[in-house]
Amino acid sequence: MIKGVNLGNWLVLEKWMSPSLFEGTTAEDETALCQQLDPALKLERFRTHRNGYISERDFAYLAGLGIEAVRIPVPYFVFGDVGPFVGCIEYVDAAFEWAAEYGLKVMLDLHTVPGSQNGFDNGGLCGVCRWHRDPEGVAFVLDLLERLTLRYRSHQAFWAIEIVNEPISPELWVALDIPSRYPAANPEDAVGSEGVPSDFLRQFYRDAYRRIRAADPAVTIVFHDGFRLAEWGSFFADEGFENYLLDTHLYLMVHTWTAGDTDVDGYLRYIDTDFRPALAAAAQHSPLIVGEWCMNTAAGAIVTADRATRRDYYRRLTEAQLDAWSVTQGWFYWSYKLQVRGAGLDGWDLGKAVSLGYFPAGWLTPTSDS
Amino acid sequence: MIKGVNLGNWLVLEKWMSPSLFEGTTAEDETALCQQLDPALKLERFRTHRNGYISERDFAYLAGLGIEAVRIPVPYFVFGDVGPFVGCIEYVDAAFEWAAEYGLKVMLDLHTVPGSQNGFDNGGLCGVCRWHRDPEGVAFVLDLLERLTLRYRSHQAFWAIEIVNEPISPELWVALDIPSRYPAANPEDAVGSEGVPSDFLRQFYRDAYRRIRAADPAVTIVFHDGFRLAEWGSFFADEGFENYLLDTHLYLMVHTWTAGDTDVDGYLRYIDTDFRPALAAAAQHSPLIVGEWCMNTAAGAIVTADRATRRDYYRRLTEAQLDAWSVTQGWFYWSYKLQVRGAGLDGWDLGKAVSLGYFPAGWLTPTSDS
Repeated sequence: MIKGVNLGNWLVLEKWMSPSLFEGTTAEDETALCQQLDPALKLERFRTHRNGYISERDFAYLAGLGIEAVRIPVPYFVFGDVGPFVGCIEYVDAAFEWAAEYGLKVMLDLHTVPGSQNGFDNGGLCGVCRWHRDPEGVAFVLDLLERLTLRYRSHQAFWAIEIVNEPISPELWVALDIPSRYPAANPEDAVGSEGVPSDFLRQFYRDAYRRIRAADPAVTIVFHDGFRLAEWGSFFADEGFENYLLDTHLYLMVHTWTAGDTDVDGYLRYIDTDFRPALAAAAQHSPLIVGEWCMNTAAGAIVTADRATRRDYYRRLTEAQLDAWSVTQGWFYWSYKLQVRGAGLDGWDLGKAVSLGYFPAGWLTPTSDS
Repeated sequence: MIKGVNLGNWLVLEKWMSPSLFEGTTAEDETALCQQLDPALKLERFRTHRNGYISERDFAYLAGLGIEAVRIPVPYFVFGDVGPFVGCIEYVDAAFEWAAEYGLKVMLDLHTVPGSQNGFDNGGLCGVCRWHRDPEGVAFVLDLLERLTLRYRSHQAFWAIEIVNEPISPELWVALDIPSRYPAANPEDAVGSEGVPSDFLRQFYRDAYRRIRAADPAVTIVFHDGFRLAEWGSFFADEGFENYLLDTHLYLMVHTWTAGDTDVDGYLRYIDTDFRPALAAAAQHSPLIVGEWCMNTAAGAIVTADRATRRDYYRRLTEAQLDAWSVTQGWFYWSYKLQVRGAGLDGWDLGKAVSLGYFPAGWLTPTSDS
């Protein structure tokens, strides 16, 4: 059972996780941000952020907590070969060194692709999902996955690579009404957008698996479920894939969105009636990880409750989720660090949640003897 | 006994603590940095650094460790009224809010003054020490201390204000050979530089005490010893000062500089033969704090020792120093956070040192029930 954390918002920006990085622009995503910022200022902002947000001391901290692995979201322009973006491969290199120094494993996670695979802000291009319709973009990503694998295959900290994060399903595209929820900055960019069809995704996963496996026989290859966990059945085993993991992301806020704000018992029931059966069914076929989750709900009332009530609330939700993850091979908290004010997002920030005692005893309890 | 930490390198930069902030320049201090950087890039670099280096989550972390107070170095251009510098009062405001939220006290520490009080890099102007010779600069600082006091006197987190950090003594100016150790970027700026004479400092302390005390009858007023701890005798009591602290900074590296690299026992003896008697003598006259100290030595060998050896070394030095500080009213570790690579400066970074288990048991041991 791998205990891990995502290094979100470091190399792939999300405005809600650090609004100040978007200051002086109207951008809601990293693409618009990089289009709007003056090139010299952009370089300055990105470099200063990346140098400061995560550094060696964070890896020492995570190791001290008992965290065993980091999932590092990287953008498709990681190698600095796509304008107007700022490449970041030197930071990925550094993360590998720091991980090795403190005994952590690294899972690379390709979090964005050209034309986007989900239209989320975290895909870097709000309201757009056209990557799968563009053969050049698809080929670019296959090359990129191979290139990343070749670069790190000999590194002792390289444990896993996730092919593509959260390719949205056609059903979820409609259910979340992505074009309204994440309006495209340039509507013409969004023309033809739709959820990523399952037949495309299956074929892409076959192609990507082959490219990565040919480059590295040992690395663990991670497939996101594309928000269709129940659909995969025995697909991966049938394909003869080895040393792979099926990644699903489970967030309590989905319950808030669908059922409204409930008390803690409502969320505990949701964990029992939704998360557990879904994982149990999928675990029949594939080794699983929960690549993203957190203790936060979208409930409003808890934020203004007194500190003891908040702690009890978050501990109970965390304990129940950690127990539910026990049928998987591991989990990655989303996320390690936010740069926001106030208590509203405390549950998204692992470091802050640890400081506030929101993890139940025996989980991520810091020790001075680590 | 107040347990505190310095938020160094946040609002007053020191190149050795985060070299990347000086990239693209030949600057060794913040003055040269601000002179060399293009104005728009400068703003971008400073804002991004300040937004990211310290935020609310750090105060939650420190409170969770049992830290009770933060000493915040602020520059003389904090209000943004002195070019070419970038003001930072909004970050001081935020620090007060965060401190109140997590029950920490704030000590403001005026870390730089126009023309510098020490010629150190951390005074912002290497090799220059002319502030005391410029009546306008002296008057500026008195006004600034009053302005800071008036701004925060009603804030629940405002505990103390330190008049000026490390005004160097004429003896130390010569002994450290400041003009060679910290060469001035513009030699003409340094003309007439010298250590700050004791008669000047005594009068300045009288004037500053009166201005601050008139603005706030309750705040604790902190006087740095100016590297002449034994000189003060009963000065402060004789002046009738109330609710004050005498601040001395004690660093093990001074022993390395003067006696060369020794084993851990050499440093332990130094603590017994130098730190303890100096504190005991001064404590006869004034309530003391150790406003800066750390576990690091300037010894080279320890950096490459195995991890267990390093931990034992740092723990022993820390335990001995904490015991030596027991005759004082409290201490502030220097510093909370660095942004550097490698292990050489681990002992300067409280967060990293905690993660690595370098604090002895019972001191800054994180707890999930804080």
